[in-house]
Amino acid sequence: MKMEKKVSVSVINRLPRYYRYLTDLLAAGVERISSKELSEKMQVTASQIRQDLNCFGGFGQQGYGYNVKSLRSEIAKILGLDQGYTAVLVGAGNMGRTFATNTKFESRGFRLAGIFDSDPKKIGTELVGHTIRDYKEIAAFIRDEKPEMAILTVPKDAMHAVAEELISYGIRAFLNFSYTELSDIENIAVENVHLSDSLMRLSYKLLEHDRSRKAKEEE
Amino acid sequence: MKMEKKVSVSVINRLPRYYRYLTDLLAAGVERISSKELSEKMQVTASQIRQDLNCFGGFGQQGYGYNVKSLRSEIAKILGLDQGYTAVLVGAGNMGRTFATNTKFESRGFRLAGIFDSDPKKIGTELVGHTIRDYKEIAAFIRDEKPEMAILTVPKDAMHAVAEELISYGIRAFLNFSYTELSDIENIAVENVHLSDSLMRLSYKLLEHDRSRKAKEEE
Repeated sequence: MKMEKKVSVSVINRLPRYYRYLTDLLAAGVERISSKELSEKMQVTASQIRQDLNCFGGFGQQGYGYNVKSLRSEIAKILGLDQGYTAVLVGAGNMGRTFATNTKFESRGFRLAGIFDSDPKKIGTELVGHTIRDYKEIAAFIRDEKPEMAILTVPKDAMHAVAEELISYGIRAFLNFSYTELSDIENIAVENVHLSDSLMRLSYKLLEHDRSRKAKEEE
Repeated sequence: MKMEKKVSVSVINRLPRYYRYLTDLLAAGVERISSKELSEKMQVTASQIRQDLNCFGGFGQQGYGYNVKSLRSEIAKILGLDQGYTAVLVGAGNMGRTFATNTKFESRGFRLAGIFDSDPKKIGTELVGHTIRDYKEIAAFIRDEKPEMAILTVPKDAMHAVAEELISYGIRAFLNFSYTELSDIENIAVENVHLSDSLMRLSYKLLEHDRSRKAKEEE
């Protein structure tokens, strides 16, 4: 498949949602869907959906809609879900636990190879079928298992040192939940998730709602 | 302040990050910053920053840069951080705990009024200075404290029923971390955060890195 142009961040941000919806549709036995139906489910406009998918060459046929299975598999390829990427989870505190428990690694095409922590109380206990390992063993583990990705849920102050260390062991991608930003690093993929930003986004939306309600009341 | 045009979702998504950076700058005693410096810190292009801030009327002066304090306060207003919105946290499991522990409610202009759970083992215990309350008492609590927002970290299957119930008590905004989507509801602000989507976004970025590395090797 050829990329037709540089794909915008907002399109990429929407793709995982498309993928989840299409997965649900497939599980429900739906074989074909129009951009209109997909747009109602996804709550974005039909033209937005057509635009988004056109970035990757366009999969739909006019008046025919999308084949759910093949659209889902194309989106999986775009997202690299067919690459079999392997991840380690570093940090088994509240954030690490909720992420490990609720993320469908296998059905999304990933492999969670191991979970690490440095807290002696956690080491040796079980989490989602993994025995939590001592962080001291991570160098040897990465050498043997060759994971590409690390999911960081470590204390803020430790994050940069941990990231540098893991890069030296060969990690090439970081999903960072450590409440502090990991800046772009050459040849390293970084996705920062700053959970509390979402509260500010909600605040913006609520303010918009309040404004339009007031405007209506004043009419 | 007048909105000049409908602001795009991607701009809104970037504003909390601007706000955090400006807060750090202010704490470090920086009074003025050029769009070039801000862009280096934020790792977006200077023209992107100018464009983003122009959506709201533009605050910078050519060759003079931005006043950190006033830019930060304008962004706070845009995000509604000056509204004094009040939130309840529903669910004190791993997700609720990590969010409560790491979110600076007060310094972002919010008030966390109460934390609720239905697990007898959790009710009565302490979390970030709050005694976790019985979910059964939430109706009376909302009537008295009048929070606008609920942060949902409840089990997937319970989420829709909880949201409907809270709307009937007067909640008008939901930050939903429940690993299932809350669809748009009339007059209700909704921000869904699906944590595992971030793993797919990272996968996309890693694939891009792999591709450009391969392309270089083949040169």
